[in-house]
Amino acid sequence: MRDFSHDHRWLSINTATVRAQWPLDRIVDECARRGIRAISPWRDQVAAAGLERVAERLRATGIELSGYCRGGMFPAATDAGRREALDDNRRAIDEAAHLGAPCVVLVVGGLPGALAGHPASKDIAAARRDVRDGIAATLEHSRAARMPLAIEPLHPMYAADRACVNTLEHALDLCDALDPARTGLLGVAVDAYHVWWDPKLEAQIARAGRERLLAFHVCDWLVPTRDLLNDRGMMGDGVIDLPRLRGWVEAAGYAGYSEVEIFSAENWWKRDGGEVLDTCIARHRTAV
Amino acid sequence: MRDFSHDHRWLSINTATVRAQWPLDRIVDECARRGIRAISPWRDQVAAAGLERVAERLRATGIELSGYCRGGMFPAATDAGRREALDDNRRAIDEAAHLGAPCVVLVVGGLPGALAGHPASKDIAAARRDVRDGIAATLEHSRAARMPLAIEPLHPMYAADRACVNTLEHALDLCDALDPARTGLLGVAVDAYHVWWDPKLEAQIARAGRERLLAFHVCDWLVPTRDLLNDRGMMGDGVIDLPRLRGWVEAAGYAGYSEVEIFSAENWWKRDGGEVLDTCIARHRTAV
Repeated sequence: MRDFSHDHRWLSINTATVRAQWPLDRIVDECARRGIRAISPWRDQVAAAGLERVAERLRATGIELSGYCRGGMFPAATDAGRREALDDNRRAIDEAAHLGAPCVVLVVGGLPGALAGHPASKDIAAARRDVRDGIAATLEHSRAARMPLAIEPLHPMYAADRACVNTLEHALDLCDALDPARTGLLGVAVDAYHVWWDPKLEAQIARAGRERLLAFHVCDWLVPTRDLLNDRGMMGDGVIDLPRLRGWVEAAGYAGYSEVEIFSAENWWKRDGGEVLDTCIARHRTAV
Repeated sequence: MRDFSHDHRWLSINTATVRAQWPLDRIVDECARRGIRAISPWRDQVAAAGLERVAERLRATGIELSGYCRGGMFPAATDAGRREALDDNRRAIDEAAHLGAPCVVLVVGGLPGALAGHPASKDIAAARRDVRDGIAATLEHSRAARMPLAIEPLHPMYAADRACVNTLEHALDLCDALDPARTGLLGVAVDAYHVWWDPKLEAQIARAGRERLLAFHVCDWLVPTRDLLNDRGMMGDGVIDLPRLRGWVEAAGYAGYSEVEIFSAENWWKRDGGEVLDTCIARHRTAV
């Protein structure tokens, strides 16, 4: 297991972590100033800053990407909706390729309409079929663009509205079904926040192996957690045994960035962005 | 699958559903008045009303129990804490026997101290060992009292502070390890709210079978869910396909009560208790 205690060369910042404070081009510059070598940007932040401008700032600072957030959201109530989702995923892949991302992270989607507060169905099995079919169709473009897709299993509390793939086992079952040859084009993003509770986690990480482990995200689970979406903790402030989890991931062959992704409406998003980044650097060394 | 549309003979009310409105003896009387044949009371409500008085009201009204809430909470930071938990579980079994309950529902506990907001450990594997050992020890008293234990897997969002058994598969693995002969003394409580998201649910319900399916709880998952604990929905108001789930449970041999358990600080707990019970009756017929 790599020693993170002396530097932060394997730290990446998911740009949602300071999205309330800064636009993306400023985030890139603030990371560069601190010797942070990688980020994972969100599409809406890229769109707001301008794809070309972001690409230019990345080139200028030498910052690379640990992922691109995000594709997915496949289930829809209509065929037109499903086609639209596929188009959008193709655009996400093209943007990711333009920015030199190593993968597009897939938040696969839940029940059609649920994220907007108007679920059009209770059929989670049908949503899961849409996800499987959507990933299968998107893989064709992924192959052409040589851009891997990383299925991110989300915590089961998001099954209805954000992602109906909620365990690493389920994500890997999809990988095995759609990419049995383990080409490297389809894998998983392991986010500690979403999977830490799973009694089968260690075994499933081992099953994933190097070819399937495309990203590793960290933050912490707070006790109590006051909001389902925006109350994630800074590493070390909660109950996830992050070093143990990182040990499993690295034992399975992962050697990439440890990406900090914190949604925190009442705490970290209210602090100075520089303080947040400095804290990420410190905790990366001591708590990951 | 039983037809629930014409009557509510298989409806049970978990007394937490109207706990904000009424003390337990009043709940018993209000259920009896509506022809509700069963309840599942909580220990603190029983203690507040008095065990003998509750037993007397049950005899007088003919209402039976569909379960007794709750035992469990096994993990502790010290040996003394673990012994105390075992003592408390023995008392829960004795109370349940006195009230004629068919089983004690086990909410097994999470990380020591977490429920009080001060987690003493990040070792969820150790908590799970405490749970296994605690159930094993409690089974001795369960056998002597002929009182079955129903492990209730809780939604993974409660893994830290309430229950570190979060899938039906994990609960059934415990059952198989501790009661391989399927004596009927150890099984599961399947609460739709906790398990509806699980892609392996249908298969695990079939695996459980009649001997292990000791209780079936319903409410609904709201979109959006605004609170991790107290924002459960009335059946039909959310996204759980309850009839499909009940079909699986009944196909596996379950033929008992459908127990309504709703924690709802901002909605149902603020309404008139009679309205809540009447709504439970109506939705039991149309949405379960």
